[in-house]
Amino acid sequence: MIQFELEAKEGNARAGILNTPQGTIHTPIFMPVGTLGTVKAMTPAEVQELGAEIILGNTYHLHLRPGDELIRKLGGLHKFMNWSGPILTDSGGFQIFSLAKLLKLDQSGVVIRSHIDGSKITLTPEISIAIQQNLGSTIMMCLDQCLELPASRAEIERSIALTASWAKRSKDASQVGSGVSGEQALFGIIQGGDELDLREQSLAQMLEIGFDGYAIGGLSVGETKEEMYRVARHIAPKMPAKKPRYLMGVGDPQDLLEGIAAGIDMFDCVMPTRNARNASLFTSRGKISIKQNQYKEDAGPLDAECSCSTCQNYSRAYLRHLYKANEILGMRLNTYHNLYFYLSLVKEARKAIKAGCFLDYKKEFLQKYQSGTDDSAAESGA
Amino acid sequence: MIQFELEAKEGNARAGILNTPQGTIHTPIFMPVGTLGTVKAMTPAEVQELGAEIILGNTYHLHLRPGDELIRKLGGLHKFMNWSGPILTDSGGFQIFSLAKLLKLDQSGVVIRSHIDGSKITLTPEISIAIQQNLGSTIMMCLDQCLELPASRAEIERSIALTASWAKRSKDASQVGSGVSGEQALFGIIQGGDELDLREQSLAQMLEIGFDGYAIGGLSVGETKEEMYRVARHIAPKMPAKKPRYLMGVGDPQDLLEGIAAGIDMFDCVMPTRNARNASLFTSRGKISIKQNQYKEDAGPLDAECSCSTCQNYSRAYLRHLYKANEILGMRLNTYHNLYFYLSLVKEARKAIKAGCFLDYKKEFLQKYQSGTDDSAAESGA
Repeated sequence: MIQFELEAKEGNARAGILNTPQGTIHTPIFMPVGTLGTVKAMTPAEVQELGAEIILGNTYHLHLRPGDELIRKLGGLHKFMNWSGPILTDSGGFQIFSLAKLLKLDQSGVVIRSHIDGSKITLTPEISIAIQQNLGSTIMMCLDQCLELPASRAEIERSIALTASWAKRSKDASQVGSGVSGEQALFGIIQGGDELDLREQSLAQMLEIGFDGYAIGGLSVGETKEEMYRVARHIAPKMPAKKPRYLMGVGDPQDLLEGIAAGIDMFDCVMPTRNARNASLFTSRGKISIKQNQYKEDAGPLDAECSCSTCQNYSRAYLRHLYKANEILGMRLNTYHNLYFYLSLVKEARKAIKAGCFLDYKKEFLQKYQSGTDDSAAESGA
Repeated sequence: MIQFELEAKEGNARAGILNTPQGTIHTPIFMPVGTLGTVKAMTPAEVQELGAEIILGNTYHLHLRPGDELIRKLGGLHKFMNWSGPILTDSGGFQIFSLAKLLKLDQSGVVIRSHIDGSKITLTPEISIAIQQNLGSTIMMCLDQCLELPASRAEIERSIALTASWAKRSKDASQVGSGVSGEQALFGIIQGGDELDLREQSLAQMLEIGFDGYAIGGLSVGETKEEMYRVARHIAPKMPAKKPRYLMGVGDPQDLLEGIAAGIDMFDCVMPTRNARNASLFTSRGKISIKQNQYKEDAGPLDAECSCSTCQNYSRAYLRHLYKANEILGMRLNTYHNLYFYLSLVKEARKAIKAGCFLDYKKEFLQKYQSGTDDSAAESGA
C-alpha cells in the first residue's frame, strides 16, 4: 500500500522516500492544507508546480460540504478536485476540539454541532473511517481525542485511553469498508499532552495495534514552543524507524526545523496559506506584514533571496496595493509565495540531511530568519 | 504611435490589426477589465494565455487606490501590474456617472465624492489626462459626460456640447504632459444618447478635433437592446474607416456580435469577470447559474463544447461546491472560463469575417446560445 525507505540520517533527522499508489513523497515534507477540496487560492497544477507531493483534506469539513457521499459518487476526492497525487485526510478529531461545538463525548464517539448550519453530527471512529473511505484518501487518520494544554494528568490519562480504544476501532473499521479508489493506509495518533511517560504509553498502545505510520497529535494547542519541542524530541526518536512520522498541525518555519531535527518526516499547517490571505508573508529574514505603510512605495521584491514567481514579478508596493484593495490576485500571489517558502525549507532540509550538514543549515536558516525585524505584530489571526 | 489596418470586411463587420508600441491587437477584440491594476482573480500570464491582447485600466479607481502618482513613481501601470501588453485607460467619465456621488458639474469639470473614503475629488479633462499619463497607458480616453437613458433632447444636446469642449481640452492636455512610458494614443468619445442626429453631430465634433480612434459612449445605460443596436448600427459605419472603433462598456455575447456586425472593432465589459464571481457562467447554450441545486451531482463539464482548462478539468458539481463554500479557486476557474468564452467569441468572429461567413457564424452562434435554458434568473447583480 505505502512503503517507507530511509535514505539518510543525521542525528535524529531523517531523509526518506514514501511510496504511495498515488505518487512518491520525498521526506521531510510539508503538506499544504486543502480543507474543502482545494488548497485555498491555488489550482492543483500550481500546488504540483510548487513541489507539494502530498496535500491534506479535512474529513469534518468535506463531510459537511459538499458531503463525502457526493464525493464518492463523483469518483472520490482525487477526481473531484483534480489532484492525482497523494492525499492525507485527518479524522475530524482536531475540528471536534477546535471548531465544532461539542454536545456529547463518550466511549462510543461524539455528537457535535456543525459550525455551518448548527445541525447535529455524530462522529465515531467507524464513521470517520467510512467518510475517509468515501473520500478515497491515500492516508487515513484514526479519530482521536485532542486536549487543549495545559490539562491535568487525569484528563490526559483518560484521553490516551479513549484515543487507544478509538484507534483499535478505526483499524477494525478500515478493514471492513473499502475506499472509493482502492486500498488506503492508516496512521495512528499518539496523544499524551506534555506528560512524557503518557506519550510513551500512548505510543506503545498504537504500536500494539499496528499502523502504516504514526503521528504526534495534541501539540501546538496552547503549550509553549519549548514544551512542544521537548515532547517532540522525546517521543519522535522512539517512534518506529521504518515508518513515517507525522507531527500534526505544526507549524512555523522554526517548528518545522526543530521537528525535523527531532526525527519527524511529515508536517501540515494552515499557517502559510492562512497567513498569506491575511498579508503575513514569510521571508528569509522573518515574517513581514505586507499591509504596512512602509511598503507603500517599496519597488523591491517581497524577498530578494526568493526565486518564486511572486518575488520575480511583483513589488512589495503592488502586493500591498492588492491587499488593501482586497483583490483575489493578492491572495493568490501571497499564497504562492508562502507555500514556496515552506516547500523550499523542507527541500533544503532534506538536501542538507543527505549531505550531512542539516544542523549547519538549520542554524544558518534560523540565524537569518530571526535577524530580520518581525513587523507582523499587526497581523490578523483570522 | 498606433496604427490600424483593415484586413477584411463583410458588410459593415471588419477584421483589422491595431499595432501599438506595446503589442499587436487583432480586431475585433474584447478587452478584459482590470479596474484596480489586476483583471480580477487572474494573473497577467493567464490573461495573456487566454488571448487577451489588450486590457483596460480605470483612471478613477487607480487615482483613488493606490494613486496614479505612486504608479508613475514605480514606473507606470504596465510595470506595476506586470503586464507588458497594451492597456487602454478610461477617463473616469463613466464612474462620475455610475459610482461616485456628483457634487458639482460645470464647464470646468466635476467635483465628486470618493466611493471609498468620501473625500472630494476634482476631475477635469486636464486632470484625467494627467492621471492617464501617470499610468502610462497605451490608449487614453477623453473625459466625457455620460447620461442615463432615457434623457431629454435638451439634456443630450448639453451633454454633447460639454463632451466636445472637454474632448478639445483633453487633446490639448495630451500634447502638453508626457506619459511615463512614452507616447500615448488618445481616443475621442461620441455621445448623443438615442438621438441619431445628435450622435452624428457628436461624431462630427470629434472628427474636427481629430483622434487616434473613436469610441461610442453612453450606451448600455438604461435603453433597450434594440435601441442600443439601432444607435450602434447608425453611427458605427459613419465613423472613420481607417481608425479603430470602440463600443464602450458593452456587453453580453449577443451585444458583441451585433456590435461587430455594425462595424465595431473593440469592446470592454465587466460582465465576464463580474458574472463569474457571482456564479453566472457563459456556455454555448446560454448562461447558467452554477449555484443552482440541479448541478449538485453533475459530473459533466460546464460546457461540453468548451476547450478551456476549467471545462477540461472540473465538473459542474465541483464548481458549484467551490461557489457554495466561497472558495477563491471557484472565482478563478469561473473567471478563466468566462473570459475564454468571450475571447473565443471575438476570435471566431474575426476568423469568420476573414472567411466571409460572419453572418452565418453569428446566426448559428445565437441560435444555439438562445436555445438553452437561461437558468440564471437567480443570479446576483452584484
